[in-house]
Amino acid sequence: MDLPAYLAALRPDFEAALAAHLPPATEWPARLHAAMRYSVEGGGKRLRPVLCLASAEAVGGPRRAAMLPALALEYLHTYTLIHDDLPAMDNDDLRRGRPATHKAFGEANAILAGDALLTLAFELLARAPAPAPYPPGQLALELATAAGSRGVVGGQCEDLAAEGDAPDPERLAAIHAHKTGRLIRAACRMGGIAGGAVAAQLAALTVYGEQLGLAFQITDDVLNVTSSPAELGKAVGSDAARRKQTYVALYGLEASRVHARALAAEARAALPPLGPRAAPLAALADYAVTRTA
Amino acid sequence: MDLPAYLAALRPDFEAALAAHLPPATEWPARLHAAMRYSVEGGGKRLRPVLCLASAEAVGGPRRAAMLPALALEYLHTYTLIHDDLPAMDNDDLRRGRPATHKAFGEANAILAGDALLTLAFELLARAPAPAPYPPGQLALELATAAGSRGVVGGQCEDLAAEGDAPDPERLAAIHAHKTGRLIRAACRMGGIAGGAVAAQLAALTVYGEQLGLAFQITDDVLNVTSSPAELGKAVGSDAARRKQTYVALYGLEASRVHARALAAEARAALPPLGPRAAPLAALADYAVTRTA
Repeated sequence: MDLPAYLAALRPDFEAALAAHLPPATEWPARLHAAMRYSVEGGGKRLRPVLCLASAEAVGGPRRAAMLPALALEYLHTYTLIHDDLPAMDNDDLRRGRPATHKAFGEANAILAGDALLTLAFELLARAPAPAPYPPGQLALELATAAGSRGVVGGQCEDLAAEGDAPDPERLAAIHAHKTGRLIRAACRMGGIAGGAVAAQLAALTVYGEQLGLAFQITDDVLNVTSSPAELGKAVGSDAARRKQTYVALYGLEASRVHARALAAEARAALPPLGPRAAPLAALADYAVTRTA
Repeated sequence: MDLPAYLAALRPDFEAALAAHLPPATEWPARLHAAMRYSVEGGGKRLRPVLCLASAEAVGGPRRAAMLPALALEYLHTYTLIHDDLPAMDNDDLRRGRPATHKAFGEANAILAGDALLTLAFELLARAPAPAPYPPGQLALELATAAGSRGVVGGQCEDLAAEGDAPDPERLAAIHAHKTGRLIRAACRMGGIAGGAVAAQLAALTVYGEQLGLAFQITDDVLNVTSSPAELGKAVGSDAARRKQTYVALYGLEASRVHARALAAEARAALPPLGPRAAPLAALADYAVTRTA
């Protein structure tokens, strides 16, 4: 499985659709639309949409069936980054190698650009009913429950609240599962649902996504210590500076790497029921823990 | 038509449902859920959900068909108030007679509570497919297009950008239409759709909602000058202090009152095709421009 070739084949269509579903930067109010485009066009790994598209293919569906959910996932993920970077939150000035949205467009426009991207994600899903036998709103329901106060937003709230407190394994696990895990799991499930997964396929994708999400976040914790701003496109060492709950703070670098690899192996181990069409997902599990940015 | 009696009859069921669909304030992360409940339970006129419920009845549908859309509208409206009040936006310390959410729970929790309420609105609509012949995602589509960068968020962006600039009729009209008008129109349309409106009924509700939204916002501009903090539950005179584009700044108090009443009359004039079941909507049009808070 040649993952770089697979990603390179996905990318042009996906990036074109990502740009096409945003209002033009010249449309009123131009500053808001420019801020939305700036934030989305910053690049990034596009991990969540890739997982969504690959999951649709893994269950035998056409890739295009998962395009709107994939776009919704990336718009939603981008909104979380914009809001996380705000001065009242993580106060990060750099994102994807460029000024964070609030540094480039001001704080009010950054808040509003995030709000608008979150709303746009659900606008796209309103146009993408899930195929039978799923209820038509299932894709939006997956995203909303993963992203809301019982998911990403709840995880971010606890992440901030726990800053400076003594490292706590249970608290860390809850933060990781909510802040990162839920959305990555949802990306896999949404792709499966859009691709018409039967129950056993969806169950396999759910386990895969859950383990992958944790592996991915632990690797994020490691890279925040070991990477460079040039490679990562954002500040490094910021977790320690803010005394955040991280896997590295709790268990050290080497144990974190070992655990991330073990979780990636568990993610891969969930895939056999999906057959050979899940090869890109297996490769993505390896990538999640061997990446350098 | 006894509007106070009508509202009093709606209120208990609606308020109970509004509380029931929020996570308990004790559920993890408790501070986030407490902030969400604090913001929603602040009271307010509940105009948008009332319009939604009354619109469903006006087209002959059962009121309960519009309950989830009505809740979604109020959660979404509450999120816009939380974010509008933030220091980076309108910097208002008082809302509905109590400290604004960011004063009571801190800025980060206020941003996150707003994000979570916006997400919750779409979670509810994911469970509320529109009745045939509407596409199942129609209710979510109505809300998303009204609330996003081409609606409420766009209006708020321009409202902030225009502060301090010379009053401009076209700019003011665009701000009013987007910041307030779109969501009030959507409230009426969503109620109609949930109630199974035929095309002519939905067209009538659309005109009604559009005129009512403008009448309501002009009355807001008037009350920001003429009311008291005790009555309004928030600061008065703040529009002038921030040199916002308002109807009053452009045309003066008396012309604003006259225009608001004319728009309310136009809203009422759209209702005859709906017959006697639209009596509450007619009374709400009068209320929108005669209210004192």
